[in-house]
Amino acid sequence: MSVATTSSPLERLKAILGEIADLRHAEAILDWDSRVSMPPAGAQARAEASATLTRLAHEQFVSDEVGELLDELSSVEEEKDAALIRVTRREWDRSRRVPTELAGEMSHANGVAVAAWDEAKASSDFASFIPHLERQLELKHRYIECFPETETAYDVLLEDYEEEMTTDQVVDVFDRVKQELVPLIERHRQRPVDGTLLRGPFPVSGQREAGRRVLQAFGYEDATWRIDETPHPFASKPGVGDIRLTTHTDENDLTSLFSTMHEFGHGVYEFDIDDGFSRTPLGRGTSSAIHESQSRTWENLVGRSPGFWHWFYPQLQEIFPEQLAGVAEGSFVAAINAVQPGLIRGDADEVTYGLHIILRFELERELLAGTVAVRDLPEVWNTRMKEYLGVDVPDDAHGVLQDMHWSVGMFGYFPTYQLGNVISVQIWERVRADLGDLQEQFARGEFSSLREWLREQIYRHGSTYPPRELLRRVTGSDLDPEPYLEYLRAKFA
Amino acid sequence: MSVATTSSPLERLKAILGEIADLRHAEAILDWDSRVSMPPAGAQARAEASATLTRLAHEQFVSDEVGELLDELSSVEEEKDAALIRVTRREWDRSRRVPTELAGEMSHANGVAVAAWDEAKASSDFASFIPHLERQLELKHRYIECFPETETAYDVLLEDYEEEMTTDQVVDVFDRVKQELVPLIERHRQRPVDGTLLRGPFPVSGQREAGRRVLQAFGYEDATWRIDETPHPFASKPGVGDIRLTTHTDENDLTSLFSTMHEFGHGVYEFDIDDGFSRTPLGRGTSSAIHESQSRTWENLVGRSPGFWHWFYPQLQEIFPEQLAGVAEGSFVAAINAVQPGLIRGDADEVTYGLHIILRFELERELLAGTVAVRDLPEVWNTRMKEYLGVDVPDDAHGVLQDMHWSVGMFGYFPTYQLGNVISVQIWERVRADLGDLQEQFARGEFSSLREWLREQIYRHGSTYPPRELLRRVTGSDLDPEPYLEYLRAKFA
Repeated sequence: MSVATTSSPLERLKAILGEIADLRHAEAILDWDSRVSMPPAGAQARAEASATLTRLAHEQFVSDEVGELLDELSSVEEEKDAALIRVTRREWDRSRRVPTELAGEMSHANGVAVAAWDEAKASSDFASFIPHLERQLELKHRYIECFPETETAYDVLLEDYEEEMTTDQVVDVFDRVKQELVPLIERHRQRPVDGTLLRGPFPVSGQREAGRRVLQAFGYEDATWRIDETPHPFASKPGVGDIRLTTHTDENDLTSLFSTMHEFGHGVYEFDIDDGFSRTPLGRGTSSAIHESQSRTWENLVGRSPGFWHWFYPQLQEIFPEQLAGVAEGSFVAAINAVQPGLIRGDADEVTYGLHIILRFELERELLAGTVAVRDLPEVWNTRMKEYLGVDVPDDAHGVLQDMHWSVGMFGYFPTYQLGNVISVQIWERVRADLGDLQEQFARGEFSSLREWLREQIYRHGSTYPPRELLRRVTGSDLDPEPYLEYLRAKFA
Repeated sequence: MSVATTSSPLERLKAILGEIADLRHAEAILDWDSRVSMPPAGAQARAEASATLTRLAHEQFVSDEVGELLDELSSVEEEKDAALIRVTRREWDRSRRVPTELAGEMSHANGVAVAAWDEAKASSDFASFIPHLERQLELKHRYIECFPETETAYDVLLEDYEEEMTTDQVVDVFDRVKQELVPLIERHRQRPVDGTLLRGPFPVSGQREAGRRVLQAFGYEDATWRIDETPHPFASKPGVGDIRLTTHTDENDLTSLFSTMHEFGHGVYEFDIDDGFSRTPLGRGTSSAIHESQSRTWENLVGRSPGFWHWFYPQLQEIFPEQLAGVAEGSFVAAINAVQPGLIRGDADEVTYGLHIILRFELERELLAGTVAVRDLPEVWNTRMKEYLGVDVPDDAHGVLQDMHWSVGMFGYFPTYQLGNVISVQIWERVRADLGDLQEQFARGEFSSLREWLREQIYRHGSTYPPRELLRRVTGSDLDPEPYLEYLRAKFA
């Protein structure tokens, strides 16, 4: 690449990082397109194009030149520049550890295994997925070996998604959470809820209208955002001024509305990052758990709150008069907050969700340690689902095959979902301390003071602060499950 | 880039070309996305990402390594490999002439000027566009200077779109065409047509349904194709198995249906190229005029033919019963084939279209020669529109600002539209000689024998043959306007 050599080291570094950001912009669009718009027959050519972009960005980033510039810039003092050097240095050190050959094998394995997972899930055929999962585990072991100084293997994987988080810390938090959740769920199981109220059908066009109204009240604008349908919803920010949400609408339930609010949380975090960080590694959310804390904030702390529904329920009744005219606001709010152990993580309520994650966190470590063999996974999964949630798994499509993550090698990611729940309530306590009870504002359809507070405290900083430091700056404390558990007790006990 | 050095020179060249094709795949998706799906505020970040991909592909292609491999491979004999070397060598020689700095300036100027054109057109404000057009002309002069051995400046520009085509040849063909068109149009002007029949309104959803039915009969399949709305329709093939058409639907006319068939012609040419050419410069249509001949074939020779409408008109009546129930098939076919001088090239009928192109071809050469100044362009445009087509131009939005091409530096492209019309009829004569009159098949909604013939004769070869050679192979003759003029006389005189 030709970057003018007359400029300062910082300018040179930023120019290289800008080009890498441009390649990642293109990768993000190729990924979004393959999940939203690409005709299926285009998959093979797309896999090749994506792999080339990934490799070019990787090669460019791990170059000696970047390392030399980082060395030259190791003592910059201006706060934002220092943050840029810190984040870039950390990524460069980690990326350099991984041989290009291994990176290529991982990228290729992901493409192959996600297609195999898709087919295996469709026919609930775990056996066909076994070799792909075994291959992913083998690659994970080789990846972990690139970081020999890390004592606990799983720490290497966690570090990719959550800087400075250790397996021990997660174990401590999850043990504490599990201890409270199990009896809480047991109590709810003894008082089953009438779920027929939310079975619809709720025509898709009405759900989209409902989603649009909520997003507009939250601050979605057509000039900068879009929302599309996809089987497995996600949010993406290819570049400044371009925030893409996706949702999955099924007329048998209202899940799309909560999924839309969830992805809004991811989108608004990215949207509100200072534009000055664009085309640098600071221009994105600081970690998976902090990101997830924000999607959970907008989905649950806002989107399942009584104030929100006091504002929105009359509108939803207007959209679905036949289905909801006879349902009182209180019954509806109770129904969308019902605690009901189920098979699917993505559909789980706020209480049972944690156990879905804890199960996956346990299994990931057991698979890596070899104490559970891939072929035995369905049996272990089903046994533990019965033990933790009391449900019988009818087939692997509704069991061990339900999530895409392992097929694309995302081991170490699941815990950040539950950490996000924990963190969301820690932050929410600060929100309430600063802004008071927001339910009255929500009941008027007003969300801007919340959004502004989150922007000021969290979003605008991008990756300037590592996640633990950000949490301390915002809440004054380290990771702590107690506010979350107190929230659950108050709402669900 | 790291391409294994143990492979043969041909394998090494193909690996490099494959990577460049992957970058172009990404560029095509970024372009499609920016015109179909991108939120408007994403434009600035997109311009940077696109420019980086363009530059990386350019740098990679004009490398010494590619030149050395081409030298090594200059004597390959296998036909397909020889074609690959020939096409790659030609492109490499031309690309190497252009300094990276100039290429960057051109790419940047296009991004700036197309936005300025968009605004200028919206407010019909030519004055604001003057500096951008002057800048484009300055860049074109610098580009032309990169090819000092080419005597006629305009030949350099033509060669980018139409290999071996010279300005003199175009002048000869256009002079002959103009000589026939002017009196033909004059005769039609004396018998104006009742155009109210096609004014609608034709609701957009019905037009989309009509477009879908026609495309399906032509051979569109959901697994490989898609169609979207965009202000300025185009077709794109980012990679194998991924053909994207666009159209623009306006309820005041049925233009979208013809635009859809036009883009289908571009799409089917690309779709039917042998997959073995994928990720190489042979894997695309051989020239702009040959491409345009195919879009015109499906739009006009098929889509405005009596057989086609004998099959499709009852379906269109079914879709628009209120608007068309009282309109006889013959009146409808006469209306969609009416010769009526108008302001807009994109809406022009088969007869007047040629004069729109001839006007642009003349003005491009005059602008380059400096015999027409940019500031005088509207006046010259309006005078000549009156002279050639007898129409009064009310404002520049409907005059000199109507087309995007000049804003993105596409001088030399317009003539290929009209050459495409000429070539389409030359090829059509061969189709009829081989397959007989196809109107009976069209009247049954059958288009597969036509498509198969075109695939076999033209499409599958991609860029294996240069356009003139392809034309000779298919028709036995060189560029010749007489069949086209005979077609117009028979249909319109």
